[in-house]
Amino acid sequence: MSTVPPAQGRFITFEGIDGSGKSTQIKRLAEHLRAHGQEVIVTREPGGSPGAEEIRALVLQGAPDRWSAETEILLFTAARRDHLERTILPALAAGKIVLCDRFADSTRMYQGLSRGDLRAVVDQLHALMIAQEPDLTILIDMDPAVGLSRALSRQTADERFEAFGEDLQRAMRQGFLDLAEEFSARFRLVDGARDMDAVAADIAALVEAELA
Amino acid sequence: MSTVPPAQGRFITFEGIDGSGKSTQIKRLAEHLRAHGQEVIVTREPGGSPGAEEIRALVLQGAPDRWSAETEILLFTAARRDHLERTILPALAAGKIVLCDRFADSTRMYQGLSRGDLRAVVDQLHALMIAQEPDLTILIDMDPAVGLSRALSRQTADERFEAFGEDLQRAMRQGFLDLAEEFSARFRLVDGARDMDAVAADIAALVEAELA
Repeated sequence: MSTVPPAQGRFITFEGIDGSGKSTQIKRLAEHLRAHGQEVIVTREPGGSPGAEEIRALVLQGAPDRWSAETEILLFTAARRDHLERTILPALAAGKIVLCDRFADSTRMYQGLSRGDLRAVVDQLHALMIAQEPDLTILIDMDPAVGLSRALSRQTADERFEAFGEDLQRAMRQGFLDLAEEFSARFRLVDGARDMDAVAADIAALVEAELA
Repeated sequence: MSTVPPAQGRFITFEGIDGSGKSTQIKRLAEHLRAHGQEVIVTREPGGSPGAEEIRALVLQGAPDRWSAETEILLFTAARRDHLERTILPALAAGKIVLCDRFADSTRMYQGLSRGDLRAVVDQLHALMIAQEPDLTILIDMDPAVGLSRALSRQTADERFEAFGEDLQRAMRQGFLDLAEEFSARFRLVDGARDMDAVAADIAALVEAELA
């Protein structure tokens, strides 16, 4: 006469500067959780659903000044809403663990750097149209010099997200650390400058504690 | 020693059900104003700037349930923001008269009909990201049976905006009349069921009063 506990999904996001190893670590964590019988989906922002991917393409292609900061925030919020409705919430409702590469914290951080006066707009839009926060946010923290050399060694389609120098990466690192302080209840810092296995073990332990 | 008065643009929007003759009347008014030496630009929503036209295409193409109501409102707000920044505000700053076929009132009306619970979200998004209201809104009012027969005789790309039956057109007419009451300071009603010249003369008189 055993009872099966109700399915309870968890929403886990990964943040960190370019080259911090988010996608590698997400893949490692997904394999680890699946090996332990968990149902996992891996997704990312911007994008993560067919509609959101189309909006992502509209935002990222073309000249950098093609959209104002305000229009870009609206487009990213539209993409996030679609991603949330079509991918994240259905998976959580089915009891799955959702691992997401970047979420609203990336928007907060980028806008805080480029147009600090827009942080209030970002927050109000989030409260009005998204509201969902992660259960857990893993911040993979590292020295930008390490992250940058890793990022430059890869080729990705997202030129606009990668074409940043070391000073900007340093400001981004600080922006994420500030968010980790602001949202300390759900943020966990992991030192990403160590070897991949050590980082993966730390992340697995943090997530297992969250699931316990 | 005469002084030239500073340029003062005016933002005039047109609302009304499909087939009410908005585009014909906007064209007539633009010709009339230009003949009297005014600088006029004619624009429309959704769309009205290159970026907004791309967003418009993304929203209007594809299956009707491709986007949720919330995502669609965000996309339309992004398009409106781009239209405002790139087309409307620069023209107003240059002292031009902007004639716009549909604006935020159409969003308010459509959302009020399809998802009445979203009217508050529409208003909050507008206050946060758009804020701009027209100086004058001409509502071309008419019996939906007249409007529908006119609309069906045309072929347009906007299938989703045209594919409505008479009951829905009746609800839309009422929705616009309700908005005219809510925003009575800037709304002016024109009886659109008369011959085109009589309608055009009424609109010209209303606009001349606004410009005086």
